[in-house]
Amino acid sequence: SKLSQQQVDETNDRVLLMETNLDDATGQQLSITIKRALELGAKDAWAEPIIMKKGRPAYKLCLLTVAEQQETFVKFLFSDTPAIGLRMKSMHREIMERRIEQVQTSYGKFGIKRLSYCGLNKSSVEYDDIEKCSQKTGKSFEEIKLAVLQEIENKGV
Amino acid sequence: SKLSQQQVDETNDRVLLMETNLDDATGQQLSITIKRALELGAKDAWAEPIIMKKGRPAYKLCLLTVAEQQETFVKFLFSDTPAIGLRMKSMHREIMERRIEQVQTSYGKFGIKRLSYCGLNKSSVEYDDIEKCSQKTGKSFEEIKLAVLQEIENKGV
Amino acid sequence: SKLSQQQVDETNDRVLLMETNLDDATGQQLSITIKRALELGAKDAWAEPIIMKKGRPAYKLCLLTVAEQQETFVKFLFSDTPAIGLRMKSMHREIMERRIEQVQTSYGKFGIKRLSYCGLNKSSVEYDDIEKCSQKTGKSFEEIKLAVLQEIENKGV
Amino acid sequence: SKLSQQQVDETNDRVLLMETNLDDATGQQLSITIKRALELGAKDAWAEPIIMKKGRPAYKLCLLTVAEQQETFVKFLFSDTPAIGLRMKSMHREIMERRIEQVQTSYGKFGIKRLSYCGLNKSSVEYDDIEKCSQKTGKSFEEIKLAVLQEIENKGV
Amino acid sequence: SKLSQQQVDETNDRVLLMETNLDDATGQQLSITIKRALELGAKDAWAEPIIMKKGRPAYKLCLLTVAEQQETFVKFLFSDTPAIGLRMKSMHREIMERRIEQVQTSYGKFGIKRLSYCGLNKSSVEYDDIEKCSQKTGKSFEEIKLAVLQEIENKGV
Amino acid sequence: SKLSQQQVDETNDRVLLMETNLDDATGQQLSITIKRALELGAKDAWAEPIIMKKGRPAYKLCLLTVAEQQETFVKFLFSDTPAIGLRMKSMHREIMERRIEQVQTSYGKFGIKRLSYCGLNKSSVEYDDIEKCSQKTGKSFEEIKLAVLQEIENKGV
Ligand code: NI
Ligand code: NI
Ligand code: NI
Ligand code: NI
Ligand code: NI
Ligand code: NI
Ligand code: NI
Ligand code: NI
Ligand code: NI
Ligand code: NI
Ligand code: NI
Ligand code: NI
Repeated sequence: SKLSQQQVDETNDRVLLMETNLDDATGQQLSITIKRALELGAKDAWAEPIIMKKGRPAYKLCLLTVAEQQETFVKFLFSDTPAIGLRMKSMHREIMERRIEQVQTSYGKFGIKRLSYCGLNKSSVEYDDIEKCSQKTGKSFEEIKLAVLQEIENKGV
Repeated sequence: SKLSQQQVDETNDRVLLMETNLDDATGQQLSITIKRALELGAKDAWAEPIIMKKGRPAYKLCLLTVAEQQETFVKFLFSDTPAIGLRMKSMHREIMERRIEQVQTSYGKFGIKRLSYCGLNKSSVEYDDIEKCSQKTGKSFEEIKLAVLQEIENKGV
Repeated sequence: SKLSQQQVDETNDRVLLMETNLDDATGQQLSITIKRALELGAKDAWAEPIIMKKGRPAYKLCLLTVAEQQETFVKFLFSDTPAIGLRMKSMHREIMERRIEQVQTSYGKFGIKRLSYCGLNKSSVEYDDIEKCSQKTGKSFEEIKLAVLQEIENKGV
Repeated sequence: SKLSQQQVDETNDRVLLMETNLDDATGQQLSITIKRALELGAKDAWAEPIIMKKGRPAYKLCLLTVAEQQETFVKFLFSDTPAIGLRMKSMHREIMERRIEQVQTSYGKFGIKRLSYCGLNKSSVEYDDIEKCSQKTGKSFEEIKLAVLQEIENKGV
Repeated sequence: SKLSQQQVDETNDRVLLMETNLDDATGQQLSITIKRALELGAKDAWAEPIIMKKGRPAYKLCLLTVAEQQETFVKFLFSDTPAIGLRMKSMHREIMERRIEQVQTSYGKFGIKRLSYCGLNKSSVEYDDIEKCSQKTGKSFEEIKLAVLQEIENKGV
Repeated sequence: SKLSQQQVDETNDRVLLMETNLDDATGQQLSITIKRALELGAKDAWAEPIIMKKGRPAYKLCLLTVAEQQETFVKFLFSDTPAIGLRMKSMHREIMERRIEQVQTSYGKFGIKRLSYCGLNKSSVEYDDIEKCSQKTGKSFEEIKLAVLQEIENKGV
């Protein structure tokens, strides 16, 4: 965002980071909680290895949500994990504008993400499409990605 | 907290997160610093593995404290560790209401934490009590926890 | 900072924490990005191992910058990494006052960092100087550091 | 295994540990490779965060396989990841004897793993069954596990 | 060990590495298990963060024991943790010869470890003694270690 | 290696894994030790975050060397780090055959690694060359890699 747009930015592009340190959850539980949080609408969810008091090997569970879902996710964390407390802070979020195109290649159809931000542009091939193609053809990720990007460039897509 | 209490919440339930990246402390020191921070009144203290500049395998030391103890813990970190700088942020904290009951079972006395938050309820057996019982009886954590929870439920405690 | 100076502090001693979770960058890329961020003026740059959605072993890339460089580093991260979004937060920063002295010892010249904060004082020997000396003499870090600190103390420097 | 069976053990209960350090694979790739390795018959597959040369934040990919599949997995790793070398070691493996029972409870049917080793016995409820039940009923993992274990014990199953 | 002694070495200086990947233990349990393993005679015990199948944030528990205690520790791990399998490998161990001296300094008595290996010598101050002194005097670890090492050197101990 | 070559393999393609757990080294030291180990001829060197006894956040330092350098690296670790013990095991190593070609492209000269193993072939562009080109042109890693691989393929190199 340009500096002149900063103020608008500061009120519009907010995301809530929620964190809780868990030394009483198992890895089995944590992976399910991460999956459920995403199904429930979290923008992102992940775990970080930490070392807690009394030398406990533990994980910090982190969620990114919109502010409107604060209550939903506090209740989610308290009911889906052994957490009895959590902390949160609002953060400013900057994202590239994205537009997805479906492009036909000799390997099949691929989603291409067109990304732009203040004059800066880049593209990426949808990872799930590469994986499916790799599964079907037995070719490696790199090989497929390269071929798809080449075709797109040649086509001037 | 209900949405109507949000404003009160925002001023009352605050916690200060302090962080410092350490590539010049040993693990021996870090574990002592974590223990001392808790004795000094930190609400939580932990370390996270990180990779710092020049490829240095390091740890980020994190403390949660009340705002009133900011000066205490800045001085503590500067005198107890090689840190020469740290950063901090006030965060909103959400905790379940807790009430501890002492319950007599056939395994002995156990502390039971009764937790509640906006209509949501859960219980947990004090971990230190399970450990002591496990140490004394040679039975596993899981076995003891299960038996204690069963007895409590049957008693309708 | 004393409580009476808190207000000044809060406006002056700010640092911006930028974070982005990367499951599509390689370790080769991340180490270069960290080096470049520092060359570009970041106050600190590091990576933290995390576990992202779909069980992806990943890294969170973190930068500390001054607020004035926000635009610079958003663009840097979007052009130098596959990131398509990032989040940031202004944090309060507390640092020890530092003064570097060059001291002549029997091992050669060493930079000594004199650090102070509200009456608290400590010193540290510049790590790069210890490393160079260790490389030249074949002596261990600890041995050199000890000898240098001894000489300085005896000299009353 | 009893000491008298040690020799037999040493030839029978072997597992091959394969490891490769990857600073040129992304997290997206690693999670797919772990999934594929398991589909291909690996007994286990996981990743460990490591810090490689030149300060590269990386992951060590590890597989446990039977010796007969050595060639299969060397080729798998060389074709599915950017690895250009790997190392391996035969290890002795000790496992508890396991027997799975299907038990009907008021929560539905659950797989119960009965485990034994030299006089030592323990049971565990199949995690996937708990998860499915949790998904269906909205109850927490712990609550379901506890209830199922209680019913089983009361039934003397 | 000199090459001529290699053969002796290979039979004498062995240690057994035991490993098990745990996605169903909590951090609370793991820290207790590590403590108990050491009380039971393990030479070392630690945990490593790993990412297991199905995206589970987990820990690998590792023990170093003498070969004679293999059976003891297999049973310990099967009864004290949810592990249902583990793997192990005999490794060659190289250690410095160590001799502990009690040295009187102006800070009190300190244990000094004198270490030697094939002509190479080094010393270290017992960490527990430094910690106790630091606790009593309020001085930092580094300050105490430095002072003690200086006194020892001056005394020609 | 083909199965018929296994025996030869087992005696020829060996590598020695050395490990030591360090709770008394700093990250500054560890990064230097890793660099020096590589300069001294180690085939690889890295660090893994671990949690040691007494809740110490620590790192395991790992080296891969040829068996002939065992003595060299034991002495190196004992003199360059605070380690007072280490463990090692010989592992079988499988590597792809590699041949480096210098290829002229419109972006300049690039090293191309041609890799093969039992009928399996792959190529990779030397990372250092990509980095240098990226530094000079300001283009991203991905963009350069893609362009170089395209030119090579078109040339039928
Ligand atoms: Ni903005
Ligand atoms: Ni903009
Ligand atoms: Ni609230
Ligand atoms: Ni301040
Ligand atoms: Ni001040
Ligand atoms: Ni972290
Ligand atoms: Ni056995
Ligand atoms: Ni030896
Ligand atoms: Ni020797
Ligand atoms: Ni590891
Ligand atoms: Ni081979
Ligand atoms: Ni072959």
